[in-house]
Formats: sequence, structure tokens, C-alpha cells
Amino acid sequence: MSGQILIQNAKVLTMTDQVQQVIDADILIEGQYIKKIGTITDLDKDVEIINGKNCLALPGLINCHTHAAMTLLRGYADDMELMPWLEQKIWPQEEKMKGEHIYWGSMLAVLEMIKSGTTTFADMYSFMDEVAKAVELSGIRAVLSRGLIGFKDQNYAALKESKDFVKKWHKSCNGRITCTLAPHAPYTCPPDYLQKVLEAAQELEVGIHIHLAETKQEFNDILEQYGKTPTRHVYDLGLFQVPVLAAHCVYLTEEDIELMAEGSVGVAHNPTSNMKLASGMAPIPSLLKAGVNVGIGTDGTASNNNLNMIEEMHIASLLHKVSKLDPTSVPAYQALEMGTVLGARVLNLDNEIGTLEPGKKADIIFIDLNQPHLCPAYDLVANLIYSAQGSDVKTSIIDGKIIMKDRQVLTIDEEKVMFEARRYAFSMLD
Amino acid sequence: MSGQILIQNAKVLTMTDQVQQVIDADILIEGQYIKKIGTITDLDKDVEIINGKNCLALPGLINCHTHAAMTLLRGYADDMELMPWLEQKIWPQEEKMKGEHIYWGSMLAVLEMIKSGTTTFADMYSFMDEVAKAVELSGIRAVLSRGLIGFKDQNYAALKESKDFVKKWHKSCNGRITCTLAPHAPYTCPPDYLQKVLEAAQELEVGIHIHLAETKQEFNDILEQYGKTPTRHVYDLGLFQVPVLAAHCVYLTEEDIELMAEGSVGVAHNPTSNMKLASGMAPIPSLLKAGVNVGIGTDGTASNNNLNMIEEMHIASLLHKVSKLDPTSVPAYQALEMGTVLGARVLNLDNEIGTLEPGKKADIIFIDLNQPHLCPAYDLVANLIYSAQGSDVKTSIIDGKIIMKDRQVLTIDEEKVMFEARRYAFSMLD
Repeated sequence: MSGQILIQNAKVLTMTDQVQQVIDADILIEGQYIKKIGTITDLDKDVEIINGKNCLALPGLINCHTHAAMTLLRGYADDMELMPWLEQKIWPQEEKMKGEHIYWGSMLAVLEMIKSGTTTFADMYSFMDEVAKAVELSGIRAVLSRGLIGFKDQNYAALKESKDFVKKWHKSCNGRITCTLAPHAPYTCPPDYLQKVLEAAQELEVGIHIHLAETKQEFNDILEQYGKTPTRHVYDLGLFQVPVLAAHCVYLTEEDIELMAEGSVGVAHNPTSNMKLASGMAPIPSLLKAGVNVGIGTDGTASNNNLNMIEEMHIASLLHKVSKLDPTSVPAYQALEMGTVLGARVLNLDNEIGTLEPGKKADIIFIDLNQPHLCPAYDLVANLIYSAQGSDVKTSIIDGKIIMKDRQVLTIDEEKVMFEARRYAFSMLD
Repeated sequence: MSGQILIQNAKVLTMTDQVQQVIDADILIEGQYIKKIGTITDLDKDVEIINGKNCLALPGLINCHTHAAMTLLRGYADDMELMPWLEQKIWPQEEKMKGEHIYWGSMLAVLEMIKSGTTTFADMYSFMDEVAKAVELSGIRAVLSRGLIGFKDQNYAALKESKDFVKKWHKSCNGRITCTLAPHAPYTCPPDYLQKVLEAAQELEVGIHIHLAETKQEFNDILEQYGKTPTRHVYDLGLFQVPVLAAHCVYLTEEDIELMAEGSVGVAHNPTSNMKLASGMAPIPSLLKAGVNVGIGTDGTASNNNLNMIEEMHIASLLHKVSKLDPTSVPAYQALEMGTVLGARVLNLDNEIGTLEPGKKADIIFIDLNQPHLCPAYDLVANLIYSAQGSDVKTSIIDGKIIMKDRQVLTIDEEKVMFEARRYAFSMLD
């Protein structure tokens, strides 16, 4: 049995075009892959048919930067200044998190992501074996990395652990898991440590995931310490020789943007987190204009507080209109490109995902169009970006498997995950 | 039969406190009113019981500024400069709208609003009898006004029509409908016309609903034409002698804010519309600090593109954190106050709605807390503002009647409304 799935009667948005184009077509999936989009005749007897009537089928959403297990800290502390928030609230709680917290926090995150249309996420955290297990079991796709702080001697042990993690999980689960190395940020990883991480990335042939130029404070501190911007600093250290996933990038000079465009750097834009923590407004229109690949991330739920990519694309589109005082900035289709095809490029997975076309992995979501807030339907992309909710995602296929059907996640016991997540969350309260 | 409804086992957020406080209590409704919150013993035999388990009960959300029937233009034109958008797209379509368009557009709007937690909305549009009929049938609460443009002679006929509308509908439907007069804006209503409207408002003892200081262009034009800011201009005309609902208020001087605090002015803040049209960032923290009542509105769906107040409170909270570069700005509870108790004050309905307490009208919504994205539950208000979706609203009671139960709107045929709305929307295409 080849495992064929046929999607009939859906509106299809392939995201392969420069301008938005919704077509009426059937989609045939065989094994992990999209086999054909168009008129389908060559079917197996045991093909599984999905009726896509009143649905928009599009590539699964790609969350380019998060810390999944932080779901256990959702709503634990909000509306605070950054440093007291971190020092008095977030870090002490994170200290208490062991493997089981990470596992159930990640399962909760994956559940929430699937239910709001995400089919791939890029994660940076600790106890990454537990995150990988959650990914393995749930059927989602992920780019995983252990976050590395470079200040103490024992962090070379963390780098060793990180390398072992890459060796164990990179390209595992039928290719659903890939790995990167994740030096946390220029202000937490001294130059010699960053260089060690770079060497390891080159040796292992994986990319780097890093927080970069997130706050004005970081920008000023790095400028003072090294006489250059955070971006120039990591560029000069050679970091951009390997594929880099740079999260945030709020404070960039024009030269920084040129350096990014020149190297193999993709940016994970986190609009909600940047707004909620009052970090600032990233120069996303300028990055896009310079040809830098920009994807969208939710960041962790402590600073968001959800993992809803439908909402995140919406907020990205709104933020840059008001930040530029230009209503044509980041139009709906461009926001959706950031959530799909550009996000795939940022994660170096654009050969596999990000668009719907034959030969790509079958990561497809279905939006239920029969909703008052998506009516009428002059423009399905505008409706999706400006009016839809995460709960409008009806069905989700990842790696050729039906993971959610009619809002029921088939691979996860939803009640059990919420029960365990609550239990482990409250176990951390004093 | 008194029509008693008893809500059991819910978490209750009354919004009567200065700081957030969630209590475990039962709520007894009798007729239109909340009779008691606490331990309930005195029950009729035929009391209807709602099990509020795993729900948060709170005052229904108040959408302080919209143009409901514009749902028919949702997604018709987006991502354009303001003037071409209005002149080439929105205004020509609005010209085509007749009574039936307005009726079905309003029904669609009301359906969407109920499904995302709104129990009261303030509307400004035309063919207002049709909007009133939609309100009457659906069971929602509304503050209605006919938009008035003051340039042409025939607009005194529109003012006459507007007064007739007030006489017919003000305090109708058991008090669910109240009315205001709505001079569109200082730049579309010359001083003598504004004064005529003010006189009519005083005569009818109703308030005024006006767009004020929405764009930089308006601010500059009024300054050039009258030598004063839009706010000072309408203040000097005496407008603030009656209760004024001022929508947008993006461009205000410190003196403008003082004038507003001094008069009986409430502000309808429309963060999504201001972002999407790139109007700017309203000085909401300063208005709140000065003691001005600020509610939240969605504006019409042509510039939003939904009527989702859960989303709107979220975006309000995020916007002012980044606009002030202060993560403590507009904390979650304050955003929720704007969506409930402050919104009631803005609409001059705070004697009737906006909080849950004995003697108030029973406008209550129930949030389904058993959702992955609302888990864990350290802080129900943070979860509601920063993580919830409109679809998390499970049940809605308006004016003591159950209007939506378990996501089913009981007063509206949802499929028929979507069918007719689509039909009338497409009838306007050339």
C-alpha cells in the first residue's frame, strides 16, 4: 500500500506564485510526498479521500522561532519590565524544569501549534531529547536546538551534549526532525565560544540558531564592548558562513541588513513578543526589500502568550503598516509568504516544504471557510490574514499523514496532555 | 414565570474591582437583570441552569465603534493608500448599498460579534432602520446612529431623518437599543452643521458619535482651516456639552486630552483599524492617565477586517507597549476594562452594563477554559487577553436571554445569514 490521500473540491493556494492565485484543483498525496496537483486519475483502490469543500488548502504554517516547553509558564508573569520579569519570574521557574516538565510542556505546545495550523516549528531550549520525543510522537515537523550559554567552563559540556543531540536526532523520524546548534545570543556567548560553536556547526554540517539584536540594550552593550553592532560582531566572527537563523533582529543598521543579505542568514520575526516585551519594531520591510528571507515566529508563550501563527501573521502585517505609516507595507500575501514559503527558506527546508507542489513533502492545512468572519469571500488571503482565527484550521496533514481531522488531533490525547501540563506547571509553584 | 437562569460552577470576573479578582460564585438572573452573585438559595421551580464548569464568566464585550453593514465589503480592498482605497473602492461600493444590503450585512456582523463575545456595539452608518431590525431580531444590544455629512443642502433632510430615527428607536426593544446623533467628522461637517446637530442632540437628550482626529491629514487640515486642533475645534463649538463618543482620537495634543477629561467625552480606540490604515498610534495611556474613559472598537470590517473584540483588546494591549517602549503599559486587566466597564461608560450605559453585579442588566459571556492555548491557568485575565481567540466564547447571555449556547446562536439562522450576505455582496460586483 502506497498510502495515497486524495483531497477533492478544495480551493488551493500553492504559494508558488509571486502574486496570490487560488486555484480549484485536487491534490494527490503518496507516502510523504505531494504527487500531483490538478486533475487526478491514477488512483489506488484504497486511496483515502478528504472532502475539501468550503476549505482553503495551503502549505502548513512554519513557526520559525519558539521555546515550546515554555507553555508551562504561559501567564505566569506578564506586564513587567524585562529584567525583573526574567530575574524574578522566568529564570527561577526555568531552573525548576526537569525532563518531564519539558516533555509535557512541549506536548502542550505541539498540540496548540497543530490546532492553529503550524506544521513545522524551530525550537531552542534545554532537555532537547524530551522535545524530540514530543515531535516524534505527535507527527509534527521541527528544527531543534539546545540553547547554549557560553560564560562558564561547564558550558563546553553543554556544547558536547548539543553535538551528541545533533548526531542522535538530525534527519531522524523520516526527516521530520533536523537540528541546529544554538548559541543563545552575542551577549551570553563570548567570541571564543561562538567560534567553537561555529566550528562544531561546520563539522556537523548544520546551521546555527541565535537570538540577535533583540533589544536596544543588547545593541548598545555589544557596541560598547566590541565597537560594532551585534550583527557586524557575529559576521566578523564568521558566523554567517553557515546557515544562520537569526531571531528578532529588531535593532539593525543599514549595513547590518546588507551583511545579512550577503550571507546565508534568515530572520525569524517575532512581532507579538517584540511588542509585548516592548523591544521595538524590527525593520522587516527593509529586510524583505534587501532580499533577506524573513519568516515569522511566536517566540515562547511567556512573552506572547500563544503559539498561534494565524494571529502572528496578522500582527506582523499590522505592525509594519503603522511602524512605516504606510498602509501598503507588508500586504496580506507577503505576510502569508513569511508564514510559509519564506519561513521554509529561513529554516533551510525550502526543498521540502513551504509550498504545495509535486515532489514536496505533504504538509498541508485546511481552513474552514464557512464562518461568519470569513464571509463574503472576495479575497481568501485577506480573509485569512486579517480576519481568521487559529480555530479556523480544520484539518492538518504533516509528512503525508493526517494529524488533525475536523479539529480532532489524532496523534495526541488532548485531555491527558492538558492534565499533565497543568500538573507539572503547578508542581513548580512554591 | 420570572424567567430565572442560574449559572453554576463558573469562575466569575465581575470587573467591579480596581484590580483583577476572579471568584467562585453562582449567578442568578431574573428577567433582564442580575439578581444575585454568590450563594444562591431562592430559586424558582422552573429555573434554567447553566453549568459553567471550566468556564470564565465575565461581562459581555462592548464594541464602541463600528459600521456593522460593512461586513459586505470585508476583503473587497486592502493594503492600499487611504484616498484611493476610499475613492476607488469603498465609496463606490457603498453607493450601491440599499436597505437589504444593510440588513443582511448587519445580520452577518451581529452574528460574528455574538460568536466572538460582543454583547453591545455602537454603530454609525445609513439605512439605520435596517440595522435596528437586525438588533431587534438577534437580541444583541446596540447604540445606533445615522452617519451625517454636512456639506450639501439635502443633508438637513438627513438630520431630520436622523431625528426621526432617534424618536422611533431610542430606548426601544426593552431598552436594548439606544440612539445617538452622528456627525461624521469635523472635516465633513462644517461648524454651522455641527451646531445644528448639537442642538438636536440637546433637544432629544441623546449623545453624539463622531470620528475625531483620526489622521494626521485631518489634524493638519482642521488646524489650517480653523487655526485649532480638531478636538479644540469641536470643543469650542460646544460639542462636549453633551455626551460625546469620539472615535479614533489618534492625533491629540496635551491640551486636547485635558479638554476631553474636562467634558463628558468617551473615546473609542480602534487599534487594528489605526494600524491597518496606517493612521498612527493613539495616545491611549495618556488618555487613561488623564481620567478619560476609553473603550475599544473594531471599526468596520473594511479596515479591520473582523469584529473580534477578544483580538481587539489583545492588539490594544500590545500596541501601547511597543508605542511607549514600556512593557507595563496597558496591562491585561486594563485592556479588559476598556473592553467592558470603561466601554460601558463611553456609551453612557454604565448604569446598566459593563460589570456583573446585582441590578445590572444580565449581559454575560462564558469563555471555555479547557483549551490547550489557555492552559495552564496561572492568570485567567492574561490568558484571555494574550492568548484567547474569539472562538473561545462558548455561551452568551444578553439582556437576560441566552443568545448563544455552546457556540450555537439561538436567535439567528447562521447558514441563511451567510448565504444572503454572500448573495448581496456579490450583487454589488460589476
